[in-house]
Amino acid sequence: MMRALVCNNHQISLHTLAALPEPREGEALLKIRQAGICNTDLELIAGMYGFSGIPGHEFVAEVEQGPPHLIGKRVVGEINIACGGCDFCQRGIPSQCRNRRTVGIRQHPGAFADYLALTVQNLHVIPDTVTDDQAVFIEPLAAALQVTELAHISPDNRIGVIGLGKLGLLIVQVLQLTGADVIGITRRESQKRLLDKWGISAAAYAEIPAESLHVVVDCTGQAQGFEDALRLIEPRGTLILKSTYHDLPRADLTQLVVREINVIGSRCGPFESAIRLLKQGLVDVTALIEARYPFDSIIEALERAAQPGALKVLLDF
Amino acid sequence: MMRALVCNNHQISLHTLAALPEPREGEALLKIRQAGICNTDLELIAGMYGFSGIPGHEFVAEVEQGPPHLIGKRVVGEINIACGGCDFCQRGIPSQCRNRRTVGIRQHPGAFADYLALTVQNLHVIPDTVTDDQAVFIEPLAAALQVTELAHISPDNRIGVIGLGKLGLLIVQVLQLTGADVIGITRRESQKRLLDKWGISAAAYAEIPAESLHVVVDCTGQAQGFEDALRLIEPRGTLILKSTYHDLPRADLTQLVVREINVIGSRCGPFESAIRLLKQGLVDVTALIEARYPFDSIIEALERAAQPGALKVLLDF
Repeated sequence: MMRALVCNNHQISLHTLAALPEPREGEALLKIRQAGICNTDLELIAGMYGFSGIPGHEFVAEVEQGPPHLIGKRVVGEINIACGGCDFCQRGIPSQCRNRRTVGIRQHPGAFADYLALTVQNLHVIPDTVTDDQAVFIEPLAAALQVTELAHISPDNRIGVIGLGKLGLLIVQVLQLTGADVIGITRRESQKRLLDKWGISAAAYAEIPAESLHVVVDCTGQAQGFEDALRLIEPRGTLILKSTYHDLPRADLTQLVVREINVIGSRCGPFESAIRLLKQGLVDVTALIEARYPFDSIIEALERAAQPGALKVLLDF
Repeated sequence: MMRALVCNNHQISLHTLAALPEPREGEALLKIRQAGICNTDLELIAGMYGFSGIPGHEFVAEVEQGPPHLIGKRVVGEINIACGGCDFCQRGIPSQCRNRRTVGIRQHPGAFADYLALTVQNLHVIPDTVTDDQAVFIEPLAAALQVTELAHISPDNRIGVIGLGKLGLLIVQVLQLTGADVIGITRRESQKRLLDKWGISAAAYAEIPAESLHVVVDCTGQAQGFEDALRLIEPRGTLILKSTYHDLPRADLTQLVVREINVIGSRCGPFESAIRLLKQGLVDVTALIEARYPFDSIIEALERAAQPGALKVLLDF
């Protein structure tokens, strides 16, 4: 028996399922210790992608069945389950596997359940010095690191980050580590307090001159965010898109041509790098914890996570 | 006295002006020998940018007044007149000068006139082995080369070029020189004949599988072209935007994020590289000449250039 949040036809409910997942060949059975709620979960539950099943893809777990050297270890798991055979797998880019399933998102059950079966090669053992509260941020921190994985950030760049939610607040920290001049673009007091704590500049959008930044990272997920970001980038600058968009921006692509701007889309990132930064204490993730709920209160936790400006809501199993 | 095409309030007419342009300090006086009609000229004349003045920015000229070593030389001219003082000029990117004027486009008279005054540092002497008919393509060929100036093209890339007008047909030739597998995306027989002549593959849009190309260059200038191009690019691929857009695409930017696509806007390019390619006979520009008119027939020439599928229309002075 296990508890699981099941989403069906835009309806969610906490079920008790009779059977645990059956690990297939190459998979381990994971007992979830903690999970985090991501905006993607809220979108899936709201029915944006016709999702049904068990959502959840940010988690810390203990290996219950699997290879002997992993039994009892605390692990996190990469969410893209690659086929191993397509051109992207062969090029060493399994996160873009053409036949991928994605934990809690596409064709694979998620982590809002007591147990999860997952390919062993997706697992990363967590060092003892990294707590569960930190480790649950490894997946989004890796996504933040995908910015520097795909874009060359110079230490003398002026960088603005727009959309300072859970992901944006990780991205400003990662970018600050490059030595660049990072500006968190916000008017919200709670976000400014965090930036201040980390020694990162804050500015309101209207305070930043047009065409004045080398790099802008758009984490807003809104059409307006894209337009705002585009306005701030100087010629030959880089616009990094970090969120899927809720709507279709009417993008002034002529601006990209005239100013010769480089736009880089970026998605899932390197887990081992995220683990290293947490181990070295270089990123403050626990400051992003908004609230924590026992898993039995997941419905309430999801409501909390959906409130405007809410940061990370955790689920303890 | 000189002849000049003057555009005023969306009206164009061929005038005889009493005075020649007065070269200012650092400028040469150029006597135009030949000019080419670009789509941008047609857009300016159609009133798209509130333009008034003398259009025209593709030309071959002879230096009539200026530094002694240039007198009598055949030259072409870069179109961006840079201030020399802004951050982009100081970084060696005068084409993105923040205070630039642009020949025949912004705050500087163009080449659809017998004479033009232009900064000496914008001039490039044409080698004797390059004819006027070739040299008049140096400006657009340089713009085509800006693709490889800004994007890294690998010899094993599969590249599609969509929108095979005057510029697209230069871009396929430049890309072919990299050794990449270049596909001109078209159904038009006249374009296919040129591709065939150059040994470049042609395919109809519908024949190309989705997400199958490493690089797509969009020269359509149409919102639909952007959407079409986006569909063809594989994950981690590059979408190069080469035309200003007539309309505002409702861009599915989520696709950029999920597939981690890199979009690169690109504008004016390196003149010396274009001259080298013409000198070495590596690009066939004269095949793009659709028609030629004496300058006195410029109104008729502009009508011809505006016909669908028209290639380069030249003006002989």
